[in-house]
Amino acid sequence: MTDEGKKSLAMVVMSGDFDKLAGAFIIANGAAAMGMDVTMFFTFWGLRALKKNVGSGKTFFGKMIGLMYGGGIEKSHPSKFAFGGIGRWMFKKMMANHGVQSLAEMRDLAVQLGVNMYGCQMSMDVMEIPRESFIDGVKEPVGVGFFLLKAQDADIQLFI
Amino acid sequence: MTDEGKKSLAMVVMSGDFDKLAGAFIIANGAAAMGMDVTMFFTFWGLRALKKNVGSGKTFFGKMIGLMYGGGIEKSHPSKFAFGGIGRWMFKKMMANHGVQSLAEMRDLAVQLGVNMYGCQMSMDVMEIPRESFIDGVKEPVGVGFFLLKAQDADIQLFI
Amino acid sequence: MTDEGKKSLAMVVMSGDFDKLAGAFIIANGAAAMGMDVTMFFTFWGLRALKKNVGSGKTFFGKMIGLMYGGGIEKSHPSKFAFGGIGRWMFKKMMANHGVQSLAEMRDLAVQLGVNMYGCQMSMDVMEIPRESFIDGVKEPVGVGFFLLKAQDADIQLFI
Repeated sequence: MTDEGKKSLAMVVMSGDFDKLAGAFIIANGAAAMGMDVTMFFTFWGLRALKKNVGSGKTFFGKMIGLMYGGGIEKSHPSKFAFGGIGRWMFKKMMANHGVQSLAEMRDLAVQLGVNMYGCQMSMDVMEIPRESFIDGVKEPVGVGFFLLKAQDADIQLFI
Repeated sequence: MTDEGKKSLAMVVMSGDFDKLAGAFIIANGAAAMGMDVTMFFTFWGLRALKKNVGSGKTFFGKMIGLMYGGGIEKSHPSKFAFGGIGRWMFKKMMANHGVQSLAEMRDLAVQLGVNMYGCQMSMDVMEIPRESFIDGVKEPVGVGFFLLKAQDADIQLFI
Repeated sequence: MTDEGKKSLAMVVMSGDFDKLAGAFIIANGAAAMGMDVTMFFTFWGLRALKKNVGSGKTFFGKMIGLMYGGGIEKSHPSKFAFGGIGRWMFKKMMANHGVQSLAEMRDLAVQLGVNMYGCQMSMDVMEIPRESFIDGVKEPVGVGFFLLKAQDADIQLFI
């Protein structure tokens, strides 16, 4: 629990996969909506989730790929999208048919709900992702020690 | 801890990979056998673990693939099975040689041990997986808020 | 918390991917350096992280692949390395440019810091990985029940 007696959640987000990021934000936003104090520590592939949308794709999916993997590798896709294209099709269909928020919308909501989003300083260094590439609303870069202190006192910890 | 003073475990199962599902059930069944209260919240790819076996494969492995990914995409396999086939071979060999339970048997044991298995309502909607496709023993569909309430008070939380 | 009042961390390491193992060791070593009691339970693909370096590759990366997947399948690579080679390039570059420890160095540090590393007995059996193949500093093989007892009383639990 936090100082204010709130229940709290601390998660590492290492994955940059579409599905994992959606899961991370759905859990984080759900927790924040319930009044929990939420910390998301983005590292490695997960850092792409914090970047401004620099995708050049015109479709929704093209933009999401740009969001996740930067402008240079729009043609890549998460491993689970490789089932003869059925994964990609499934996501497009699910977005269109069921009114689920896009990743960018989930991320906006996280900012609005006061979810604390941090980039891992070491990962930012090694992947050469400057803080300036992040959207507004991301906190200052921190190290693994910061995450561990948050996680020690959190009621829920997850590695995604 | 739960109301009855039992230790408790709450896990999200997002993966539908053979190896990850085996890990999830081994941990869940181990915890239940130790007297813990166990909650498994299946979402996204993980939902396949709850489906009745509709695989048309005749081999054990063909049926497992059917179990995980439904009848239409039996030819797909988890990413870790792609090492020139050695992953698939390894699993078959390990099953045959070491008397480890199959996934279906692990799942049956989970039901017998009173593991609480839930499907994520939102994922079921977007992936168009009706409750009727699930095996007996799965509880009513729930949302992420239900999981978070369970996880807040659990002694162990995992994201698989 | 442990008996001595230390904060504690218990993690399952199922993945054998380069990036996931790096994350696991960075978190474990960070926690140990902060004075936490750390338990790493290596299972399945993760067991490769405990093996002596039997890779025959001459390059750093060749050796790491050997470390992770044994001598026979040096040509394999983690799924995230498949982006037209950019993943592999990225890791090599990041190692060279930013002075980050190699996986082997991280593991050595874990031993020095007193991180408790265990192999999962069942996984060792089914994958036919004998205890003798492990580096010095790995504890005796244990089962999932051992991990669960550690995790129940730990302040942080993670599944990697």
